[in-house]
Amino acid sequence: MPADHAAHPITGVRVTPVAFRDKPLLNTVGAHEPFALRSIVEVVTADGTAGLGESYGDLPHLRRLERAAELLVGVDIFDLNAMMRAVVASLTADDGVGGHGMGGMVMNSSAADRVLSPFEVAALDVQGKLIGVPVSELLGGAVRDRVDYSAYLFYKWAGHPGEAEDEWGAALDPAGLVTQARRIIDDYGFSAIKLKGGVRPPEEEIEAIRALRAAFPDHPLRLDPNTAWTVPTSIKVGTELADILEYLEDPTKGIDHMAAVAREVPMPLATNMAVVSFEHLPPAVAQDAVQVVLSDHHFWGGLRRSQTLGTICATWGMGLSMHSNSHLGISLAAMTHLAAATPTLDYACDTHWPWKDPEDDVVVPGSLVFSDGAVTVPTAPGLGIELDPDRLARLHEQYLHCGLRERDDTGYMRRFEPDFDPSAERW
Amino acid sequence: MPADHAAHPITGVRVTPVAFRDKPLLNTVGAHEPFALRSIVEVVTADGTAGLGESYGDLPHLRRLERAAELLVGVDIFDLNAMMRAVVASLTADDGVGGHGMGGMVMNSSAADRVLSPFEVAALDVQGKLIGVPVSELLGGAVRDRVDYSAYLFYKWAGHPGEAEDEWGAALDPAGLVTQARRIIDDYGFSAIKLKGGVRPPEEEIEAIRALRAAFPDHPLRLDPNTAWTVPTSIKVGTELADILEYLEDPTKGIDHMAAVAREVPMPLATNMAVVSFEHLPPAVAQDAVQVVLSDHHFWGGLRRSQTLGTICATWGMGLSMHSNSHLGISLAAMTHLAAATPTLDYACDTHWPWKDPEDDVVVPGSLVFSDGAVTVPTAPGLGIELDPDRLARLHEQYLHCGLRERDDTGYMRRFEPDFDPSAERW
Repeated sequence: MPADHAAHPITGVRVTPVAFRDKPLLNTVGAHEPFALRSIVEVVTADGTAGLGESYGDLPHLRRLERAAELLVGVDIFDLNAMMRAVVASLTADDGVGGHGMGGMVMNSSAADRVLSPFEVAALDVQGKLIGVPVSELLGGAVRDRVDYSAYLFYKWAGHPGEAEDEWGAALDPAGLVTQARRIIDDYGFSAIKLKGGVRPPEEEIEAIRALRAAFPDHPLRLDPNTAWTVPTSIKVGTELADILEYLEDPTKGIDHMAAVAREVPMPLATNMAVVSFEHLPPAVAQDAVQVVLSDHHFWGGLRRSQTLGTICATWGMGLSMHSNSHLGISLAAMTHLAAATPTLDYACDTHWPWKDPEDDVVVPGSLVFSDGAVTVPTAPGLGIELDPDRLARLHEQYLHCGLRERDDTGYMRRFEPDFDPSAERW
Repeated sequence: MPADHAAHPITGVRVTPVAFRDKPLLNTVGAHEPFALRSIVEVVTADGTAGLGESYGDLPHLRRLERAAELLVGVDIFDLNAMMRAVVASLTADDGVGGHGMGGMVMNSSAADRVLSPFEVAALDVQGKLIGVPVSELLGGAVRDRVDYSAYLFYKWAGHPGEAEDEWGAALDPAGLVTQARRIIDDYGFSAIKLKGGVRPPEEEIEAIRALRAAFPDHPLRLDPNTAWTVPTSIKVGTELADILEYLEDPTKGIDHMAAVAREVPMPLATNMAVVSFEHLPPAVAQDAVQVVLSDHHFWGGLRRSQTLGTICATWGMGLSMHSNSHLGISLAAMTHLAAATPTLDYACDTHWPWKDPEDDVVVPGSLVFSDGAVTVPTAPGLGIELDPDRLARLHEQYLHCGLRERDDTGYMRRFEPDFDPSAERW
């Protein structure tokens, strides 16, 4: 392996777990806990240039990142193949348990791709700074200077149980969701709407979508029940919402079931659950099971591999959109650069951004601003953001004291509804 | 389009047609003429950094490169998306006739990808120089420090008609090919052998492969008749050469026919004719028509898009090898960096290198050296080669005086065999 002439060797990698306050957002496996966990990755090269990455904060994933970090020291910051080899080597003795980062909803993404991702983003951040160009330029050049995001609506409680009502209040019926949508669109200017479904019986969620259509006649609408429905239910909902939904996201579980639904409903099926790794593409394509893939650089192995996914989607005539988990500013910057440099990413991207406290972040404020539903692509070198050590320290303290070490939406929900059933295809 | 903050704008592009002496190599559509044509691309950015690319030299292609070159001035050297847009714009009024670069054997590659390719290579050369890293590093990092090439055997005449016998002499039967193989392997150390077939009746080519197997029991063997055979003939040859061929390359024409052969023969089918563009991948995959794709950055849109092809092949379980046309040192450098940085490119790559006169090149000698069948991956910044202005001028003079403006293997052959039939599937 020709690693002996590393011009820009990595000399240090730091992985810091952080926690930030989250809202009681409901989904089909439970509810968001009061804190969301993330890992912040800092990579430094021999000349002192530092880069940033962000990933899931579940403890098994954190441990994997730490083991990979040890093997990454000495690797050249441009040598992504060597980084992948180091990551694969770090996983040799891994038990594969936990750390999937998605609260139990997605268990079959690639561990190597999940672990590589924040280091690849940090490497691109360093590369951009060394060269003096933004990450979007490294990814082939921005084809848009603003990246559209969507209004991500959630059924939610008024506040976390035992706490005061939060500033968003409850949204447990169509009227509540319309109110939520009005506020989030007033605040951010989003021009597309996604509803996290799989929470209420399908008939109620159909009513919610109809209410949103009536209130927002021009906003593309998406519904994502996270595989809560059987094939017949999915077909029934898809048929009823013909001409209303831009796409229907993961109505049912697995490639075979998605294919069965896709054959019967008029709108595209989108996924970030049935196709979450390169190995899932051949069977999905063979059955035409999904028509839109929601990319997510956190589990597709970083920004460059996500772009390759984009070319694959374009080659096979699939659309490309972008998935989100609760995230901080480093991920928002990475998502924005990726979307900016991916010509075929035409859909407004998902983001959980509005749901976190504006004070809770690790980057210096001001470089990522929403206007008219979009984030302006940073043009400063690298990701175009800067770590705020004080904020990082505060969110790390919050991690140490919050008591959470894994995302557990189901466990949290069962504290209040002991019989809560998170099963897929339960409707 | 955010092109107004170009940090490293292209300030000049020069396209120079050149000709270099070639041997009378035979293939299914005719014979190589006394000169092969190439286009040499030089790109310069505002700070004076220059990069090199190389492509086909046919006049329609040369004109396309020149039109694209005009639109590339001002584009940032990192902004490959903007380069592709410029190329697409330059082709708006193009008639699509000619300039396919393959002597009539491949007519359906993408014009935009063919035109983009040398500019993308030149851009990566500049990027590498600006950053101080080799192109292999920009492509994700070399996973090997030497790239294996194969012994590319041809049926050939003793010399061009009317000229003296060349130093290789004739190879028109199994004994001649074995002699040719011994010499090329003695000279270069190649450890794999490819025979360009489709020249003699299939029975004779089977005998040639058996003779090569007897003489070189340990060298992987490949046979490439360039679609000269029908489906039944392809199946017959493939069956007879079971356990002898590493792969059988383009025995018959088109994805449907390749699929019909693939179902019946024991060895993988390889192609650089049935699948030459991203749009050909879905139908080929759906039929399992090919098991190895021979990438070629000259028509797959450059090095990065060739790497994406590599990931697609890995995802769908197809092998990846590399195709060659008659080429000079710039292409050899680009091919070597690409192969070095593509983990799944496990086959020895094709090259026509031994068939050109060592004196005929445009790069300063010494940076690309064969030993034991491999080229050491350059570690100097960029492609690691340097243009020799005197050699470029001499090969351009040769272009001006050679009288050739398009590759026409069939026309050349018909001067000596007026009834020569270049039809596909003629056996």
